[in-house]
Amino acid sequence: MKQIKSVTLILLFVLCSVIPPAWAQNDPLPSWNDGPSKSSITAFVKAVTDKSSPDYVQPSKRIAVFDNDGTLWSEQPAYFQAFFIFDRIREMAADHPEWKTQQPYQAALEGDMKALAASGKEGLIELVMTTHAGMTTDEFAEIVKKWLQTAKHPTLHKPYTQLVFKPMLELLDYLRANGFKTYIVSGGGIEFMRPWTEEVYGIPPEQVVGSSIVTKFELRDGKPVLVREPKLNFIDDKAGKPVGINQHIGRRPIFAFGNSDGDLQMLQYTTLAGGGKRFGGIVHHTDGAREFAYDRDSHMGRLDKALPEAEVHGWTVVDMKKEWKVIYP
Amino acid sequence: MKQIKSVTLILLFVLCSVIPPAWAQNDPLPSWNDGPSKSSITAFVKAVTDKSSPDYVQPSKRIAVFDNDGTLWSEQPAYFQAFFIFDRIREMAADHPEWKTQQPYQAALEGDMKALAASGKEGLIELVMTTHAGMTTDEFAEIVKKWLQTAKHPTLHKPYTQLVFKPMLELLDYLRANGFKTYIVSGGGIEFMRPWTEEVYGIPPEQVVGSSIVTKFELRDGKPVLVREPKLNFIDDKAGKPVGINQHIGRRPIFAFGNSDGDLQMLQYTTLAGGGKRFGGIVHHTDGAREFAYDRDSHMGRLDKALPEAEVHGWTVVDMKKEWKVIYP
Repeated sequence: MKQIKSVTLILLFVLCSVIPPAWAQNDPLPSWNDGPSKSSITAFVKAVTDKSSPDYVQPSKRIAVFDNDGTLWSEQPAYFQAFFIFDRIREMAADHPEWKTQQPYQAALEGDMKALAASGKEGLIELVMTTHAGMTTDEFAEIVKKWLQTAKHPTLHKPYTQLVFKPMLELLDYLRANGFKTYIVSGGGIEFMRPWTEEVYGIPPEQVVGSSIVTKFELRDGKPVLVREPKLNFIDDKAGKPVGINQHIGRRPIFAFGNSDGDLQMLQYTTLAGGGKRFGGIVHHTDGAREFAYDRDSHMGRLDKALPEAEVHGWTVVDMKKEWKVIYP
Repeated sequence: MKQIKSVTLILLFVLCSVIPPAWAQNDPLPSWNDGPSKSSITAFVKAVTDKSSPDYVQPSKRIAVFDNDGTLWSEQPAYFQAFFIFDRIREMAADHPEWKTQQPYQAALEGDMKALAASGKEGLIELVMTTHAGMTTDEFAEIVKKWLQTAKHPTLHKPYTQLVFKPMLELLDYLRANGFKTYIVSGGGIEFMRPWTEEVYGIPPEQVVGSSIVTKFELRDGKPVLVREPKLNFIDDKAGKPVGINQHIGRRPIFAFGNSDGDLQMLQYTTLAGGGKRFGGIVHHTDGAREFAYDRDSHMGRLDKALPEAEVHGWTVVDMKKEWKVIYP
């Protein structure tokens, strides 16, 4: 009897040695170095999910919003949506000789990233809108899906869906595991993102907010379609982001992550009102070796005004170089 | 031993007599009489949720959309949103003497339902928009909530949130229990519905699509707010419904329920494309005794064009009088 007890104890001891301790097993953010950003994220999530905490937030109100370009995937040397449109611009250029000397079309035709960047996010959105109209929404979704299967980044030579940030994928999973509903709120085209965000980020189409052109309902040979018209509907950038959030979600988020001045109003809207504990985060692109290093002077994703505001309001600024163990999956 | 067995059998028999049979216990639509509508609903849900069925639809694509006025709650003698605005119109009328002879304001001031109905859904939406601007979105939500606590229907003398259709509440629950995501897609104001749809229908704000006015982001004394401007943004009615669905949901629904010609394009968009099994339903107001009886000639919720189309496309037309055991909870 004594011997059996001893064997049981030894077995238990062996099992305990083999199984890693709970803290290592359960690290929800393994690609994040222990540091101020990881601590502030986990402290926030614990505070709003612990029922005994004064900061507890019921699950239905755990809304988290994320910018896309520069926050969930890279955005250099140009927004990836710009690369997507180059092929269509080239196809359509035969009917538009004036584009050879007209920006932003000239830049797109020549692949001139600097000139393209100079036209700003609005210029890019205009390019997308004017060149991507004339087909149905279903047809457009197919074009985007096909492009993603073959297209590669011009300098990193990888498919674009592999240029997403692994630490941010972990953060999305971590938040969802804690009852958050995760949304994208991007200046990019809503219909450009929706065909792939569920597979790549786990974010379904109905949780994607973005810029859009006008669509029109038609019956074509008795079949109902939505036709994309060459007319701007909404720009989901800067002061437009809180408007887009309210229009689509109808609740003030409690958690927002961005990387540029285009996200400033979204961060303000999320963190400076509504009561209770709130989280604002900024991805600071500090890693020129593994990704890109840019902030105040960048044409893409300029981070200037939001940086001093982050200090004033206690937003978490992620130093990519120091705080992320890896960048891409 | 034999005696014990007998006692056990008797006990089992007694238990079986006391517990109602499974089909009665599990009837998901107890307020629906057995009939063509109930059968077509349950047959559809079984077909798309049974993994061995050729019509199986994965849960993420089980999107169900519902009109609100006349489909989930009553809409006579006027859309309930019209009654909501009367108080504000009366308050503002002191500064607008011209309203005494100007429609639709005159009708609102005099409580003239017929004249109000004649101004159509667009007239009502205009009234809402022009009179409900100038405050923040948070302030407007509070106004709506307070109104619902005290306001009563002018002829039925009940709070509006009690004038919802019990059979439809059961249908919403039944669909959600079968993995559907339920949405409202209404011509009514999106911000008028969101403050109460979660409590009344179990539909959260982010699953409400409706008409809207323009909102503008502002920092007021450092606090971020969205100000409602007196400018129409979007009318979510008729051909606008598929546009609103695509804008907010980004997927074609597989299930749609409406009650008027304002829902025709939503029903077409849902059922006439996209492949696989699809469901279209229409609530036909046939019960003048328990609710209201109206269709082709009604100013509110006119059901004219959609009725013959229902026959052509095999949509389910619910005869309220025959098929609903009760109307209100």
